[in-house]
Amino acid sequence: MKFNYQIILSFLGLLLVLNGAFMLLSLPFSFYYEEQSWVGILISGLITITVGVVARLSTRKNKNKDIKKREGYLIVTLGWLCMALFGALPYVLSGSIPGFTNAFFETMSGYTTTGATIIIDIEAMPKGLLFWRSLTHWIGGMGIIVLTVAILPLLGIGGMQLFVAEAPGPTHDKLHPRITETAKRLWLIYVILTVAELVLLMLAGMNFFDAINHAMATMATGGFSTKNLSVAYYNDSPVIQYIIVFFMFLAGTNFTLTYFGFKGKFSKIINNEEFKTYLFLVLLLSVITSIVIFVNTDNSLEKAFRDGIFQVVSIVTTTGFVTADYTGWAEFTTILFFILFFTGASAGSTSGGIKIVRLLILVKNSILEIKRQIHPSAVIPVRFNKRAVSQSISYNISAFILIYIIIFFLGSLVMSLAGLDFNSSLGAVAATLGNIGPGIGSVGPVNNFAHISLFGQWFLSFLMLLGRLELFTVLILFSPYFWSKS
Amino acid sequence: MKFNYQIILSFLGLLLVLNGAFMLLSLPFSFYYEEQSWVGILISGLITITVGVVARLSTRKNKNKDIKKREGYLIVTLGWLCMALFGALPYVLSGSIPGFTNAFFETMSGYTTTGATIIIDIEAMPKGLLFWRSLTHWIGGMGIIVLTVAILPLLGIGGMQLFVAEAPGPTHDKLHPRITETAKRLWLIYVILTVAELVLLMLAGMNFFDAINHAMATMATGGFSTKNLSVAYYNDSPVIQYIIVFFMFLAGTNFTLTYFGFKGKFSKIINNEEFKTYLFLVLLLSVITSIVIFVNTDNSLEKAFRDGIFQVVSIVTTTGFVTADYTGWAEFTTILFFILFFTGASAGSTSGGIKIVRLLILVKNSILEIKRQIHPSAVIPVRFNKRAVSQSISYNISAFILIYIIIFFLGSLVMSLAGLDFNSSLGAVAATLGNIGPGIGSVGPVNNFAHISLFGQWFLSFLMLLGRLELFTVLILFSPYFWSKS
Repeated sequence: MKFNYQIILSFLGLLLVLNGAFMLLSLPFSFYYEEQSWVGILISGLITITVGVVARLSTRKNKNKDIKKREGYLIVTLGWLCMALFGALPYVLSGSIPGFTNAFFETMSGYTTTGATIIIDIEAMPKGLLFWRSLTHWIGGMGIIVLTVAILPLLGIGGMQLFVAEAPGPTHDKLHPRITETAKRLWLIYVILTVAELVLLMLAGMNFFDAINHAMATMATGGFSTKNLSVAYYNDSPVIQYIIVFFMFLAGTNFTLTYFGFKGKFSKIINNEEFKTYLFLVLLLSVITSIVIFVNTDNSLEKAFRDGIFQVVSIVTTTGFVTADYTGWAEFTTILFFILFFTGASAGSTSGGIKIVRLLILVKNSILEIKRQIHPSAVIPVRFNKRAVSQSISYNISAFILIYIIIFFLGSLVMSLAGLDFNSSLGAVAATLGNIGPGIGSVGPVNNFAHISLFGQWFLSFLMLLGRLELFTVLILFSPYFWSKS
Repeated sequence: MKFNYQIILSFLGLLLVLNGAFMLLSLPFSFYYEEQSWVGILISGLITITVGVVARLSTRKNKNKDIKKREGYLIVTLGWLCMALFGALPYVLSGSIPGFTNAFFETMSGYTTTGATIIIDIEAMPKGLLFWRSLTHWIGGMGIIVLTVAILPLLGIGGMQLFVAEAPGPTHDKLHPRITETAKRLWLIYVILTVAELVLLMLAGMNFFDAINHAMATMATGGFSTKNLSVAYYNDSPVIQYIIVFFMFLAGTNFTLTYFGFKGKFSKIINNEEFKTYLFLVLLLSVITSIVIFVNTDNSLEKAFRDGIFQVVSIVTTTGFVTADYTGWAEFTTILFFILFFTGASAGSTSGGIKIVRLLILVKNSILEIKRQIHPSAVIPVRFNKRAVSQSISYNISAFILIYIIIFFLGSLVMSLAGLDFNSSLGAVAATLGNIGPGIGSVGPVNNFAHISLFGQWFLSFLMLLGRLELFTVLILFSPYFWSKS
């Protein structure tokens, strides 16, 4: 098959134009806070827009053609990569993050809504660039919504076709025009929730700048904060922390379900197995963690509960905000949170990780396997939301989880070569592949990624992209099948 | 369905009679070394035989009936449990391991061919009990051979029906009389290889007592040594260590293949995909590990290679003999060996862990999944040894691996409650579930399990049994489907 590289280039051009325009949104903050860094931001925006416009103009003859499936894979991966390459410019050209590797890591961490940072003194950064940093989260979150709800199901990635009630069937080879429709609806919810959180945070006493940054980072399940202490800065404002918990939980919920909620169709939410499991998991683990905190520290019951629910929701949703060091309470919680690095929240949300629905289907299959062994002649399919899960989806999910684990193990080996110890290697890989942010060990919740070698930063950036794009979207590009003519 | 408890009891009685007879084999060593502990061993043997005979006599009317599948599951799990309960008697009654929990842990570690020990000063133990300790390995190894080659395929456990070329089909509901035939053949090989290793070790300079103990522990992929330093005691005898490497490798090979080797059918060996992968994996990892050792220590090239190949083969085959501390070379090797705790060697061998064939099939499926996404309408089955793998086996393997990982994670949480730190919790669970022996952290290759709490020892004993019986054989007993009438 021949690829239509023109259409790919045209699409990347469009992304760059939008990306450049977004950069310019940081300028008002630079001006307001009278920072010199506005020059770097402006130049970055103009460069990005110019490159985008040139790419668009050079390919304008092809722009009305349909995008084929294989081109779809290329556009998604190259798109994210282009965004991160150009998105790093404001940091570099303003001099606020001097090295390109560091800047690229920070940007990839932003767009993939990971939240791992190499910045040691966040509060010393120019406000304009802090805004840009949170904005990369928010843009990444928008990308994820359209990706998981509309594009990945069409590309047949990781059984995603199953998870989204509203998505068109997986058999179409051409990207459906309905994408735009679905995406617009869900973006509207995304914007409404972000604004709602912003307003509530301000009512709870946060200033506008911190509120907009935290709201964007929450809804993207990103985790970049404007404070060195992350959300622990607001330990004296329980209301602020509970507001963030609430919106993190929403950001980890399938946006299609939230859409049904807005339309008043609550039965769709109540009957969704993934949502019920997500809610149950969060409540159960919050209670367990709170008890562990209460027993092992001299915190009040309220503070123990708040830290417990905050950290459980923050890690399950892969946000990565921190109110307390979960590796400092007990070995039990260190291991518990390490396990939660893998789960993730709902499919169709902005969260990363394996996703609850995949685990749910595999756990169900495993339990049924016991039944199948007792009745070997009976055909016993896995059911999800009252429908039988097809064999091809089961295969797909099982392959996804195995590849996830293999990448985790091999990645940990690579990071040990980059100089990390046992805990930190496992933690850094699980936290970047799952788009969490903070890990354990030397990249734990009270540390950062600044000490990672340049090689290590490139490698972890790659893992963030791999995890964010549900593995297959990227891996498929490395397969000979993809490039073969048949 | 009603169980024929009589037939189960009768079978357990037979096992106990054999077990008691085996105990008496330790007596000559007690007499030769003039140890007082012969009394305890004799009494244990007589008690075990008596209980066994009583169980047989009380049920002799039913002994000619066929054993049904469900009874098979019960016999296997209860059988292993009974062996361990009675097998602990010699330690307790001789006073050489005072606490019953400790003695049970050591015995379960023996029969499951794990090799994790709670004995701090091994060389201070009476020789008769050291022989009994190695013998529990060897008996466990015999049990595993008949189990994996003949019984589990019939019970449909974990896709085992696929792995053994000679095994009867998985559709029979009644245990086939051919089991006895197959088992006898493979036991003969097991005995021949043990004797061969014994003779070679003696020719290389080991005394008879140490040679027979190490030979039994090797062929069972157990790992109990008669020396406090394990095989590192023989660091000045490279020939001894290379002999052990060779036999560990054989013990990790499918015994059916070794049988073909004895019959001169080498093409069956050369064309076996699992064997090729096993050989390739061992060679590749030995070279990598040797390089790491050579770079990080001042060992000679020969010693680096010897430690490298010894530890790789020891851990991949789940033997657990130690010639050097693999957690002391580099973080890279710590993580590498931690990963190897999960793989195991060949199905149909005495090794534990997930087994290479299961991983091979899942890796193949994952690679094909990429091809399937590009050609969604094509049916692309996984092939193993040139035959298509059925859907039910794929499901089974995928369920096996997921349950393995879930048990690993939850088990680590439990061990953290038992007071272990992050590394040690993960290490202890992976090393017992995979029937390796030594783990990492405080249960690493130069440590032992003596410091684990009584609760922790019971829990790890359970994990050893679970891993040894390929998970499902035990888990199925906890399912309501198993006990329901239909």
